[in-house]
Amino acid sequence: MNHFADRLLDKIKQLDNPTVMGLDPMLDYIPPSLLAEQDKHERDPKKRAGLAIIAYNRALIDHVADIVPAVKPQLAYYEQYGIPGLEAFRDTCDYARSKGMLVIVDGKRNDIGTTASAYARAYLGETVFPEGNTFPAYHADALTINPYLGSDGIEPFLKECRDHGKGVFILVRTSNPSAGDLQDLRLEDGRTVCEAVADQVDHWGASLVGQTGYSAAGAVVGATYPQQAKALRQRMPKTLILVPGYGAQGATAEDCADSFDKNGQGAIVNASRSLMLAYKKHQMPHESFAEACRQEAILMRDALNEALARKRQ
Amino acid sequence: MNHFADRLLDKIKQLDNPTVMGLDPMLDYIPPSLLAEQDKHERDPKKRAGLAIIAYNRALIDHVADIVPAVKPQLAYYEQYGIPGLEAFRDTCDYARSKGMLVIVDGKRNDIGTTASAYARAYLGETVFPEGNTFPAYHADALTINPYLGSDGIEPFLKECRDHGKGVFILVRTSNPSAGDLQDLRLEDGRTVCEAVADQVDHWGASLVGQTGYSAAGAVVGATYPQQAKALRQRMPKTLILVPGYGAQGATAEDCADSFDKNGQGAIVNASRSLMLAYKKHQMPHESFAEACRQEAILMRDALNEALARKRQ
Repeated sequence: MNHFADRLLDKIKQLDNPTVMGLDPMLDYIPPSLLAEQDKHERDPKKRAGLAIIAYNRALIDHVADIVPAVKPQLAYYEQYGIPGLEAFRDTCDYARSKGMLVIVDGKRNDIGTTASAYARAYLGETVFPEGNTFPAYHADALTINPYLGSDGIEPFLKECRDHGKGVFILVRTSNPSAGDLQDLRLEDGRTVCEAVADQVDHWGASLVGQTGYSAAGAVVGATYPQQAKALRQRMPKTLILVPGYGAQGATAEDCADSFDKNGQGAIVNASRSLMLAYKKHQMPHESFAEACRQEAILMRDALNEALARKRQ
Repeated sequence: MNHFADRLLDKIKQLDNPTVMGLDPMLDYIPPSLLAEQDKHERDPKKRAGLAIIAYNRALIDHVADIVPAVKPQLAYYEQYGIPGLEAFRDTCDYARSKGMLVIVDGKRNDIGTTASAYARAYLGETVFPEGNTFPAYHADALTINPYLGSDGIEPFLKECRDHGKGVFILVRTSNPSAGDLQDLRLEDGRTVCEAVADQVDHWGASLVGQTGYSAAGAVVGATYPQQAKALRQRMPKTLILVPGYGAQGATAEDCADSFDKNGQGAIVNASRSLMLAYKKHQMPHESFAEACRQEAILMRDALNEALARKRQ
């Protein structure tokens, strides 16, 4: 089973949990004791930051790998820590995969065709080195991408999906307060901009549908606008939906349920801060961040499954 | 003079050259002799690739720093070579700045507010490390960004422009064949999507105008669609325009001239492959790539200045 959507939906079914853990590290999320521990290994503050991030991510992954199907590292949070941050990103991808989790890289990459090919190689394919050697720069299963440049900025990513069993999630409707500035503008044909993008995504994904009926070309649709999410779910029936906005951004399990199909499939809900900072909500000590994350991940799984069950009734 | 647009326009005036050299390295652009030389220092093929890229970029920079005001490294080409590629990116930024060139990072980054802040810190600001230390992850002067998420995905970048004298170039009309898939869709109010984005860019940039009359919040408008470029120039009178599409993508100096104001200012034209691969056009040996780049950079400067002079007549 090499198709991305088939792999992801199979893993979701196996764990009975349609969620993905966002890994968006900030140094102040990391307990002081874990930070201090890195002092033994490294004095340079930037390299120490990289070591602390990977130690922190490993602890989170260790505590949820048996109950959460996937992780979503957000590249910005690693890029802000320079090269050591990107080493932590690389090692996070490898560690999550070694624990059987799928890795969805959140990079929202986009560019003209030739450059999009370089991004596609970096995250979904392999780069050619001299003497004909090829290596992947990073090991990931899927990447988020931005549709502003149209089809020739998307096609290089779809090629890697076809050739390597990878996936993409194309931004359609984002979860942020100003999402509508551009995405809700009304076209002369009556559609909004994000509905027009949804139609493009549906078209781009048509040739990449797997055995589950879902395409390896998915979409990002935020749960913070549930009415739109419901309409976009119907508009893209074969499109796997990555749902941001749960928890810290304010969307409930009921809001998220609208992005699933009538069988409770076809979507995966992300939570980042609400899992990483669960120790605060559960009033547990900072050092217990990973245990708190597991507790919150179980609550989130159960809340989503209950919302999906209510929807099916 | 700390304002980005002021700094860039001053440098352009000083060198009488409104161009930026794109640095989009592919290993097969690099002469075999320069690649082979890295064997002495490094056996690992990925690390060797990183060393070859920085050696190649340094040679290009050394040959044009006295005639070209800025470089534009495109992140995708570095990301495809993993960590060593990003080390080459970091060193390229530092080296270009040490030679007095401005650095415009082409990353087309975009995300929701909290995450956009992390990208903004990475490329335009500084990241906080434990014990209150702050360091920039990379040293750059400006970053390209994508407007799909609306104002709260843009504001964190503008904050760094205000606080640190940096700049952004927001995608308005890209240079690729499928740019119109989304950007040319007609809104019910009669504007196209890219015209609506241009109006937003004009608005976002209004509070960041420098002494030259241009804002630190610029726009990307491709020269491959000259009629649109002309209209967008008028629509965004205070917006500095980064113009891709010259050379390998097919736009001429005349096409580019339409993105400048009536005084021949307010825009900077990028060329990447036509400079990096100039040795082919000039039928020079591969080893003379940097000399060929300089020759082509002079031809490009003169062609643009002649086109601008004809426009003013």
